[in-house]
Amino acid sequence: MTELRKDPLIGRWIITGTRNKEEFFQFIKNPDQEWGECPFCSGHEEVTPQEIFAVRKPKSKPNASGWDVRVVPNIRGVFNIEGEVGRRGKGLYDLMNNVGAHEIIIETPKHIKNIGNLSPEQIKKVVSTYQKRIKDLQGDIRFKYALVFKNQFKESKFYINHAHSHLVAMPLTPKIIKDELKNCHAYYAYKQRCLICDILEQEMKSGERIVDESDAFLSFVPFHSHLPFETWIVPKKHNADFTKEDENITLALARSLKTTLSKLAKLLDDPRINYAIHTIPFLRAREGYWKTINEDYHWHLEIYPHLMGLTGFELGTGSYIQPLLPEVCAKLLRETPI
Amino acid sequence: MTELRKDPLIGRWIITGTRNKEEFFQFIKNPDQEWGECPFCSGHEEVTPQEIFAVRKPKSKPNASGWDVRVVPNIRGVFNIEGEVGRRGKGLYDLMNNVGAHEIIIETPKHIKNIGNLSPEQIKKVVSTYQKRIKDLQGDIRFKYALVFKNQFKESKFYINHAHSHLVAMPLTPKIIKDELKNCHAYYAYKQRCLICDILEQEMKSGERIVDESDAFLSFVPFHSHLPFETWIVPKKHNADFTKEDENITLALARSLKTTLSKLAKLLDDPRINYAIHTIPFLRAREGYWKTINEDYHWHLEIYPHLMGLTGFELGTGSYIQPLLPEVCAKLLRETPI
Repeated sequence: MTELRKDPLIGRWIITGTRNKEEFFQFIKNPDQEWGECPFCSGHEEVTPQEIFAVRKPKSKPNASGWDVRVVPNIRGVFNIEGEVGRRGKGLYDLMNNVGAHEIIIETPKHIKNIGNLSPEQIKKVVSTYQKRIKDLQGDIRFKYALVFKNQFKESKFYINHAHSHLVAMPLTPKIIKDELKNCHAYYAYKQRCLICDILEQEMKSGERIVDESDAFLSFVPFHSHLPFETWIVPKKHNADFTKEDENITLALARSLKTTLSKLAKLLDDPRINYAIHTIPFLRAREGYWKTINEDYHWHLEIYPHLMGLTGFELGTGSYIQPLLPEVCAKLLRETPI
Repeated sequence: MTELRKDPLIGRWIITGTRNKEEFFQFIKNPDQEWGECPFCSGHEEVTPQEIFAVRKPKSKPNASGWDVRVVPNIRGVFNIEGEVGRRGKGLYDLMNNVGAHEIIIETPKHIKNIGNLSPEQIKKVVSTYQKRIKDLQGDIRFKYALVFKNQFKESKFYINHAHSHLVAMPLTPKIIKDELKNCHAYYAYKQRCLICDILEQEMKSGERIVDESDAFLSFVPFHSHLPFETWIVPKKHNADFTKEDENITLALARSLKTTLSKLAKLLDDPRINYAIHTIPFLRAREGYWKTINEDYHWHLEIYPHLMGLTGFELGTGSYIQPLLPEVCAKLLRETPI
């Protein structure tokens, strides 16, 4: 029985009950199964569940080869697409059913591990697929938010070494997004300007934390980065809604992403990388709602390399010790040739 | 140059610049030095900095043997006890100097790795030392909060296998504490009751998440635990301020801590463990301030075993997937004999 439960002290939701006792102890003893043949390569379409969406060559058939990007349900997904949210109390506690979507976006038909090694045109197709899938899920009024994220590991027999991302649509807005919306709104209420637009202006002026810059995007190590070499890619033109960017912008994003990820891989010996796209909640994105106030938020992509573990300090405080100054991280990345 | 920087989007502070480039890359290649002789054992007092405080046998001398609990500055501490806070802006960013205290509480003169293996009387001395050190640092008006936390590792030549905790006093209140205070206050404002008192009542009534219970403390897996086998130890009698508990309560806490940690170690093969004490900020603890409103918060100790890593989902959302139902975790711990 999988449930969503609210933490009444912190305000965040957790997802629990995704494994039973036996599975869990098996998992912590040996966290990952060995993968034999890659289930994501072209020609192995029958190994995955039926595709939800694909960018396909003309006349190619669903669930067969001939695709460039392919989206399938996650067979290990923690959400269930069927059923009602069922938000309810249990004494003073709050819970919901694990209603949601968990999709896998397979980013290339070829067996290539890192998205940064694909062509900008191919990455653009991936980014457009992110947009299409979020937009499609926006129509489902049970859901409040969709998060695109990536777990990219070092080459290993325990992982699928084939570029892919995750998309989850959930009946809640995640805590970090809520905090961002709240603080961006407070700034906007006081200044009548977007906080992230102002950050961009300050970063471009100082230049000391820039990793890469194009006409449309700034890639930089935030002043407040909480992990070493954390890097954000932010559109220069204000836009709260990632799904509303046009083809020129998605191609520019693909180029920035390729450059930034290639620099991180080269400088840090292809580290484990996560990234996530932060955009507005569904309620704000749906036509007619909130149209006028999307001036206070600004979508962006956050990249987190995994170089260090967390300690009791981070877990106990929610504050972070990030040993290397952001300016030093940025300079090293800026000077890394690709 | 170590600085505290505020994340304008999330509202949390990070500590950065604790290592230079060479140290950092050395650290990620080989995170820990091998420890030869234990610096914390009785007889090795000259290896550590001068002691700040000790529970000592009559007539024993500072910085010599004859102690039961000993507190020394952390030689690798990230805070600097000297200087002013210097809170200031840099364009739209906020920063402070790394003014603070970072102390190590050595919990036994003997070479014993886990605090759970000490006697309740010895653990009580440790807990009383936590209180004394927090109270002492409360007097320093530069500081806003003190956090006691523990990083307890598996036996390894890379760690000091000798029971100790950390105490940091900082010029800020950590984000997680602020969130707890805010939500507890909202609950109190509506109910005129303490949220954590109400949680205790519900937990005692249902019993399904209890790990251990005494007259003074309840040890349980929270309904909303974000890590598998996360366990909280909470005083049954309302009290916002950990430092105000008397000797009977600290002895009872020592017993609960010993029982709970022993169960976790036995069931989970002595896992890596962190714990942290959440209590009120200094401003609320200082005499004369806030005296009347400490009815809305309730100090407690949170224990986090490390069994799994985080992914892009956790980093991107601040939500957590905790695979094993809290009720299952609690039952397993409850039934683990010690």
